[in-house]
Amino acid sequence: MLETRSQEHLSRHLVSFESALLDCRAKMLEHSGPDVKFVNKYCPSSSSSSSASSSSSSSAREMKILATLRGSLSRKYPQKNGEVLSAQYGINLLLVGLALMLALAYQGPTVTEETVLAFLTTLMLMQVLWMICYVARLERKRNEPPERDADAATSWIRGGLTLLALLSLITDAFRVGNFVGYQECVSPILGVYPVIHALHTVSQVHFLWFHVKDVIKRYETFERFGVIHAVFTNLLVWSNGVMTEAEHALNDHKRRLSAVGYFNFTVGEGNQPNCNCTTSACSMFSSGLYYLCPFNIEYHILVSVLLFVMWKNVGRTLERRTNQKPASSAPLLTGSGDGPFLLLGSALGLLALASAITVLVIYIIHVEESLEARHAAISMFYWFGIIILACMSVAGAVGLVIYRLEDWPMDTAPNPARTLDSKLLLGSSIGSWLVCWCSVIAVGGATNSPTYRWANLGYAILLVLEKCVQNLFVVESLYRRRREPEERPALCTTHNSILNPSQGNEKIFAVYDGIINHGYESPDKHCENEKQTYGGNNGNVSHSLGHGMPETPNRQKQVLKNIAIFLFMCNISLWILPAFGCRPQFDNGLEEASFGFPIWSTVLNFALPMSLFYRMHSVAVLFEVFRKI
Amino acid sequence: MLETRSQEHLSRHLVSFESALLDCRAKMLEHSGPDVKFVNKYCPSSSSSSSASSSSSSSAREMKILATLRGSLSRKYPQKNGEVLSAQYGINLLLVGLALMLALAYQGPTVTEETVLAFLTTLMLMQVLWMICYVARLERKRNEPPERDADAATSWIRGGLTLLALLSLITDAFRVGNFVGYQECVSPILGVYPVIHALHTVSQVHFLWFHVKDVIKRYETFERFGVIHAVFTNLLVWSNGVMTEAEHALNDHKRRLSAVGYFNFTVGEGNQPNCNCTTSACSMFSSGLYYLCPFNIEYHILVSVLLFVMWKNVGRTLERRTNQKPASSAPLLTGSGDGPFLLLGSALGLLALASAITVLVIYIIHVEESLEARHAAISMFYWFGIIILACMSVAGAVGLVIYRLEDWPMDTAPNPARTLDSKLLLGSSIGSWLVCWCSVIAVGGATNSPTYRWANLGYAILLVLEKCVQNLFVVESLYRRRREPEERPALCTTHNSILNPSQGNEKIFAVYDGIINHGYESPDKHCENEKQTYGGNNGNVSHSLGHGMPETPNRQKQVLKNIAIFLFMCNISLWILPAFGCRPQFDNGLEEASFGFPIWSTVLNFALPMSLFYRMHSVAVLFEVFRKI
Repeated sequence: MLETRSQEHLSRHLVSFESALLDCRAKMLEHSGPDVKFVNKYCPSSSSSSSASSSSSSSAREMKILATLRGSLSRKYPQKNGEVLSAQYGINLLLVGLALMLALAYQGPTVTEETVLAFLTTLMLMQVLWMICYVARLERKRNEPPERDADAATSWIRGGLTLLALLSLITDAFRVGNFVGYQECVSPILGVYPVIHALHTVSQVHFLWFHVKDVIKRYETFERFGVIHAVFTNLLVWSNGVMTEAEHALNDHKRRLSAVGYFNFTVGEGNQPNCNCTTSACSMFSSGLYYLCPFNIEYHILVSVLLFVMWKNVGRTLERRTNQKPASSAPLLTGSGDGPFLLLGSALGLLALASAITVLVIYIIHVEESLEARHAAISMFYWFGIIILACMSVAGAVGLVIYRLEDWPMDTAPNPARTLDSKLLLGSSIGSWLVCWCSVIAVGGATNSPTYRWANLGYAILLVLEKCVQNLFVVESLYRRRREPEERPALCTTHNSILNPSQGNEKIFAVYDGIINHGYESPDKHCENEKQTYGGNNGNVSHSLGHGMPETPNRQKQVLKNIAIFLFMCNISLWILPAFGCRPQFDNGLEEASFGFPIWSTVLNFALPMSLFYRMHSVAVLFEVFRKI
Repeated sequence: MLETRSQEHLSRHLVSFESALLDCRAKMLEHSGPDVKFVNKYCPSSSSSSSASSSSSSSAREMKILATLRGSLSRKYPQKNGEVLSAQYGINLLLVGLALMLALAYQGPTVTEETVLAFLTTLMLMQVLWMICYVARLERKRNEPPERDADAATSWIRGGLTLLALLSLITDAFRVGNFVGYQECVSPILGVYPVIHALHTVSQVHFLWFHVKDVIKRYETFERFGVIHAVFTNLLVWSNGVMTEAEHALNDHKRRLSAVGYFNFTVGEGNQPNCNCTTSACSMFSSGLYYLCPFNIEYHILVSVLLFVMWKNVGRTLERRTNQKPASSAPLLTGSGDGPFLLLGSALGLLALASAITVLVIYIIHVEESLEARHAAISMFYWFGIIILACMSVAGAVGLVIYRLEDWPMDTAPNPARTLDSKLLLGSSIGSWLVCWCSVIAVGGATNSPTYRWANLGYAILLVLEKCVQNLFVVESLYRRRREPEERPALCTTHNSILNPSQGNEKIFAVYDGIINHGYESPDKHCENEKQTYGGNNGNVSHSLGHGMPETPNRQKQVLKNIAIFLFMCNISLWILPAFGCRPQFDNGLEEASFGFPIWSTVLNFALPMSLFYRMHSVAVLFEVFRKI
């Protein structure tokens, strides 16, 4: 009796499903006119469901629906094609820019700074045009807002971005000021570029605030080109900034060598214009630009990453679950029981930050004084590095042990932002790992033995270890499911007890139902996952499911939160040091003796930007981890 | 009445499914003893099915099975962890090797060639040990052979690999011969290295023939380290070969410059030992090594790629469908209707190959003669390149148009080998694209105008275009589903007509039935996919499904096969030219004037190996495309 009822329920469900699809098709036709392909895309089974009325048995219908849904799942190829095409466009754009910059680096007759700036200005203008088109098209279709990917860029990431953008705007103002001072003898493009850059920054931040989460499904191929153009434009502006920074580093290096008597260097050599400044603020602008440049660089690489996620999202079919806003977590540092525990992590982190700034100031002053002071400064840097890296490694290892002790459930829903985050962490570690192994080899084979020789070795090995542990910790945290202790037990008992056979059947269809009823899948899957993990060794199922959350996990959660905030602060510290001129790899001379200046400076020019990006990216990801735990 | 019967059928099916699972669990327990985790992995629902006997309703049971299957699908995290850990090990291994090679390149006091060779020898011995362990463990468990990924490395890829390995062994023999000649004044490691390398080559080829398709599920983490160690060992030996080649190229460049009077160069400068050869064959060995080196390089990079696919497969849950051997395609060049058509493609391809070898010989002779002969040789190279690249672009474009005209079904089943193939193609294009854009900039800004100036520009632009078109063609071909015209219509009509309601229900369960009955899914999905694509605009469904395959697609298939074989031959030609010393980028002087020798030779040393790899990889992939169409 029960079974016949369930079968009836099943066919009722199918009929309602089909009518929903027909509705959907009709609605789409109203909006998109004769674009049949478009309709077929959004209502994949409409063509088969309209012909299904001729066949009367419910099983033939369910077959059709199943098949069409399967078809819609495997309809990925056109996307592949568009991806390859636009990726090739983007890569070639980047390579043209890189080729121009390489020619500029040689300071040969072919390419001058004006060429590169004109190229970048053109690209930025094209991007602004595309953004205007995009927003205008969205405005026209205001009644059908695009789907949004909740994971794409959290509001605090966009907040941080806005901060960096503000500093970037100040940089532009300084550049304009500098241009006004030297107006007589420099090309007008040096004045046009910062103005366009400011315009670009403002419109881009606006675009990112309101559209970076959009999942583009209309004019896919065109928009894909637009987005990839934006990604690579920002990457090129980043490369340009990195080149400027490399020049700064080289000039610093020369000045310091000349200060301790190795080398004859006149201040202002190289990139100064050939006339006198007509205003009094030029030197202020120059030194301001020196300190603001790192922020400008981070701004562009961060934007590239966000836009790349947007590109990966073009044409993506979103599961409803990933589209839900996650429950807001406890406010920062104000939870009742959180207070004392979080204080520990943030106090240690602030201590690390303060010491890093102290080390930076002492280093910059002492490294230009005398040979002894120079060696002492370098030693100090390495010992500071050893202490902070050891603490960070221990913190990360403790976090990993906690994860091993308690097998929390994991989350494997598709999430381009998270995949990219973990790949970028791993990828950008390569730069500083290469530097570390070079240091190890240099220390091993060094003929002279300065005081900091073995400290350098320890620092290099600890840096490799620290990045390995931190990567593991971050990836593990990102792939853990966010837990809501008060919610879970209720959900699971509900599903286990009150389900009757007809609901069981409905559930089977709910899974196929990839277009309309995604909501179905989520709570049950969540519950079953937890059951599987918590009850790994058969007996514990009832224990861990039945009685809410015990005390322990809450304490472990506290420890993890502390670790995250501590690592967050430490990564800021380790970003500040190289970003503002504390680069002992240039100054210690050991590696230069083993690799020669040309090879070693090439390695550093490749590795330091990656290392800076790694720290900044870790900061962003660790903050997310902190909020998630 | 029908519906009740179908419901009965459904519960019968469930009961047999559960008993199969219980059997599976019992069998596993026999083999693995108390390792419960292992059993749960292979029989994911065993723990829940044993407790299910207490609950009597069939719907509760089906719920459990569904849930556990879902759970087993989302059990991915430990894999993520192992992946990150082993990837970090592999990357650091590579970086240590690279750091050693950079130090060697400087020819400073720290690192000598012996250090690098000793390092590589150790790595190779470790890999051999691991392979022995792996094979021995498999032998002990001979009754449970691992699953195999049919897509991983086709037999002809392994055949090609064996050929390269044989040439590699000859290289080793030459190296040993060289060592015997100079025995008195060189380090013994120069004799040990080729012997170990030969041992490594033989055991590795054996391993690849019999185990590269294995999907490792036992001791996952340990094996993952073993495989990644093998990947990066081969990558390091490749890097070492590339460095040797770069040295060859530099010496060629110097010798040619000195031959036309720019430069004073004594033959044998640099890497010759300090004593006289005691045998008469040393110069033969040296020049033999010069010509065999490219094959050795390709061998190692190819092995890396194959092993990387094996690494991606560790712990992967294979769908039964991907595990089936694809139907063998028509034998090469012998199909009855194929003859005349395939002759065209292969004739044109052979023509390209023959002309490439002619160009190579003329180039190498003329480029050292006089300044005029040198310029004529370079011009000849560029004009040959323009013609062949134009033909290739047109061929690729025709292929793309054919794909656009007839929407063949696509295949989106997970396939790490294919994903890697397309990413590698795109990634390795970057090298020569960078060279091209540098050439464009250099030509644009050149102050002197040799005869080949504009030919260089055309060649560079056509090379960018050709790689774009070829990438699109290859990716599109790889993601197309293999078609079997005789099979398809029969299958589809069967499924559409004789299915009755009870079979419909069975099918629903067959999909969930991810462990035992995968076979179910394949033919139906195939059929429905084709229906969807062929009948894109609603009316054509009956036309394209009803009456077998018309003439046209067969002719189009012929054209595509011709295109594939033509591109295959052209890519071989374009590999031969740079691999054996035809590198006008070094000789034409235009780029060197714009970028300076240090930057330009760095760019070439980075880009040329990538470009060679691109051509070799295209050859492999195009052969696969040819067999697939």
